[in-house]
Formats: sequence, C-alpha cells, structure tokens
Amino acid sequence: MKVEYINPFIEASQSVLKQMTGVEAKLKKVFLKTSPYDSDSVVCILGVTGKIRGQVLLSMSHESALKVASTMMGGIELTALDDVAKSAVAELSNMILGNTATILYNRGIKIEITPPSIVVGEKIQISLEKVKTICIPLSLGDGVELSIDVAAEES
Amino acid sequence: MKVEYINPFIEASQSVLKQMTGVEAKLKKVFLKTSPYDSDSVVCILGVTGKIRGQVLLSMSHESALKVASTMMGGIELTALDDVAKSAVAELSNMILGNTATILYNRGIKIEITPPSIVVGEKIQISLEKVKTICIPLSLGDGVELSIDVAAEES
Repeated sequence: MKVEYINPFIEASQSVLKQMTGVEAKLKKVFLKTSPYDSDSVVCILGVTGKIRGQVLLSMSHESALKVASTMMGGIELTALDDVAKSAVAELSNMILGNTATILYNRGIKIEITPPSIVVGEKIQISLEKVKTICIPLSLGDGVELSIDVAAEES
Repeated sequence: MKVEYINPFIEASQSVLKQMTGVEAKLKKVFLKTSPYDSDSVVCILGVTGKIRGQVLLSMSHESALKVASTMMGGIELTALDDVAKSAVAELSNMILGNTATILYNRGIKIEITPPSIVVGEKIQISLEKVKTICIPLSLGDGVELSIDVAAEES
C-alpha cells in the first residue's frame, strides 16, 4: 500500500489520541506483519471499502485499554473492562477511522468505514488473507501501547 | 433490520454451504443477540457498507471449523486449525457474503463487503455497539454448528 494511504492513519491516530487523552502519542517503527500473528487481548475491528478495501484493527493489552478508557473518562479509574470501558475504546477506534476518512477525502481518496466489532479474549491469533498488514505502533507513555494494523489495499 | 435484508444472508449461507460441503444446512431459530456476548473460538469478521452498514461475523467452534474445512478440502482429515484450515473457513465466509451481496443487488439493494479477518482464541467475547445483532444459527449435522451474526443497519 502506498505511503500516501498510510500517513493519514498515523496523522488521525495521533490527532485523535491527543484530543481524547491529552497525550502526544509517540510513533514507533512502522512494520509489516505476517499473517497469522498473535494479538493483544483487546481488538477493535473496522471494515473499510471504497478506494481502499480491507480491515483496520486497533489492538492493545487489557491494561492499556483500561488506562486509555480511564483517561478518556476524565481520569475515573476503571478497574474492569466493562461495557463502559469497551465503549470508550470502541469510540476511540471509530474516531480514528472517521478522522482518517476525512483526511483521505480531502486528498481525493474516498473511503467508507463500518462501525467497530470489539473482540476481547485470550491467546488471540489473527489471520488476514491475501493482504499485507502494516502495523503502526504507538506509545502513550506510562506503559500504554497500542497498535493500528492496516490490512487493506487499493481497489 | 428488515426481513428483506436478513433473508438474503440465510439464502446465501444455505446455498454456499450446500455447494462447498454438499450438506443441506438446517436453519435453526433466528434470534436477537445482546451485546456483549460470548463467542465461539473461531470467528470470521467482515465489514459491510452501502445500503446496509455494519459487520457480519461467521463463528463456530474449533471442532466445527475443522470439520467444515476438512469437507471443503474434499474430505482430507485436518487435525489442526492451521493456515490451510483457516483459509478454507475464511473463503467460506467470503463466499457467503459475496453471494449475499449478489442476491441483495438483484433486489435493488447495493452493498460492498470487505475481506474477512479471522480471529481465533479462547474466552472470546464480542461487543457490537449501537446495533442489534441478528443471529442466524445453522446446523450441518454431525455436531457441526455455525452461526452468522448480522450486526448491521440500514444507512
């Protein structure tokens, strides 16, 4: 996938994370993931159609999800990944993809996105067929890490 | 979601399953699932945009996935859910959704679908925000059960 398609995901992630958590998300080295891969235990999966077609997965550990959700809730300390916490993480993924779609649209690339499915579990392994998965790892400090996996291609 | 949107998913599932496994899939009682719900351990997730927007999840147990994949491979007995087996299950989900899209298109309802993400894990719980999830349970006999969860709405 072209860099011009990936950069908006990075820009949107950093912008939305700053807005929602107040923290500057530090971009780590972007890399290609080989399918299947072991995943973190909390994954938001969103579909993308249009000029780019595929799936985008926002994943993080249980602990990172709790910290991110707590920050988004104004610092209320959440201790369990309940519906409220999952809803916050889902909204984060929704906003990141919505923002990405807007950036792409302004550059003449039209995509449509689906709402997220939130998957929580243990020993999760993810397979994405026939497309390369580009992993965008982001660090929010204080041990909070998340990654945005873009498994999509130009259609 | 309207019945006219759900029926094509059922028709396509039964038609594709018959074609790929030779078995008449028996439709059990369709019902509404409340989010979050505990899921089977093998889940194919596909996005839908267009006139219907959301996610479709084909899920089954490890054992059912192995049996379905074995039948699709011409009866070769698969003992592990490896890349080949997962690829077969992914292809099944892809064909069911593709077929659904064709049926809907022929009835004047245009949708676009994404390729599947295949999630395998333990103690999987799935949350779908803000949309009702319609569960279509299908039985292939010999203990093979699968369900198609449609978490989508008219857009």
